[in-house]
Amino acid sequence: MTSAAPSSPESEAARHREKMQKRKAVQDQEVAGKQIEKGLLMVHTGPGKGKSTAAFGLALRTVGYGRRVVVVQFIKGAWDTGERRALDRFDDLVEFHALGEGFTWETQDRARDIAACQQAWAVAKEALSNPDVALVVLDELNIALRYDYLPLSEVLAAFAARPPGQHVVVTGRNAKPELIEAADLVTEMTLVKHHFKNGVRAQQGVEF
Amino acid sequence: MTSAAPSSPESEAARHREKMQKRKAVQDQEVAGKQIEKGLLMVHTGPGKGKSTAAFGLALRTVGYGRRVVVVQFIKGAWDTGERRALDRFDDLVEFHALGEGFTWETQDRARDIAACQQAWAVAKEALSNPDVALVVLDELNIALRYDYLPLSEVLAAFAARPPGQHVVVTGRNAKPELIEAADLVTEMTLVKHHFKNGVRAQQGVEF
Repeated sequence: MTSAAPSSPESEAARHREKMQKRKAVQDQEVAGKQIEKGLLMVHTGPGKGKSTAAFGLALRTVGYGRRVVVVQFIKGAWDTGERRALDRFDDLVEFHALGEGFTWETQDRARDIAACQQAWAVAKEALSNPDVALVVLDELNIALRYDYLPLSEVLAAFAARPPGQHVVVTGRNAKPELIEAADLVTEMTLVKHHFKNGVRAQQGVEF
Repeated sequence: MTSAAPSSPESEAARHREKMQKRKAVQDQEVAGKQIEKGLLMVHTGPGKGKSTAAFGLALRTVGYGRRVVVVQFIKGAWDTGERRALDRFDDLVEFHALGEGFTWETQDRARDIAACQQAWAVAKEALSNPDVALVVLDELNIALRYDYLPLSEVLAAFAARPPGQHVVVTGRNAKPELIEAADLVTEMTLVKHHFKNGVRAQQGVEF
């Protein structure tokens, strides 16, 4: 260290403070520029973990504020899941509809899958027209849309016509481009590393 | 349609069934190959949304099974968040420690940030040595590691020495490569589209 100016802990602290003051100014300006409040159409897609889990995290936040949530599961059926058991403790605020029949390779019956999806969609449509519902979780709807079990145009029309303050979150791999186009917020969950590769099984509290 | 074989609804249904039977066989074989049960070290990183939210979704699942969760927030302080209010309903199962002082550009005081992180880490270490805790959520720990507010080697050693069945989830952008290397499951949340870009502000139930 011959050419650098001598640095004391005090001057380092001052430099840190100055840098962070600038950063805060930028941050404050950004926040001030955002004034629109509206219900968001959110999509969690991609091959990684966390799509449904993050949707249940949003449900948790919403009930934390005493606001109502409707969950419709398009694939999962009457499975006994941790999220369901936990949200049951908020039965004044959460309606949980697990209307799927399992993955399509479990049922092996396309007609039955379509009927189950249509029933689930009827429940979803009701929630999407109810202004008392703050958040609608449409779990694995992307799977139903991908297999053309439901008409995409009808789904997009129901989203567009929903109460203005209502949030919607759609989960599942392979979100349709038209849905991504219509969405306010799209997150792709990318798998960097997965324990299944190392022979570890699906585990309580993580996968279900 | 001159060359295609005539197709009846029955034969289509049969083809679907056959395809799904094959798929199920592959699926069953994959599941049978996974027998290891162990606590997972999970990392949610990347610039997209849902890192902390998915971690709170895991907490929700865990309490759904009546198992204990400890949440340590390294950046968020005494903020009034939806996740906190909701998890308070499980105060028999969830310990919630919001020990941060805010983002580092809010405090503008590096020494204070480091002290807050070290206090949070002391609480985390206790949880990581308690076999009654099924899940430890270390929210925004990646930020603390990135700014070198905590020694990475000490954090990795505590993870390695934790009770074998205990799950840990670490959130925050810019996860260190050594942490990714040590992890069982890493998801990168990628931002495809964000409502902030269109002037929409952070909203109750979504961002906090």
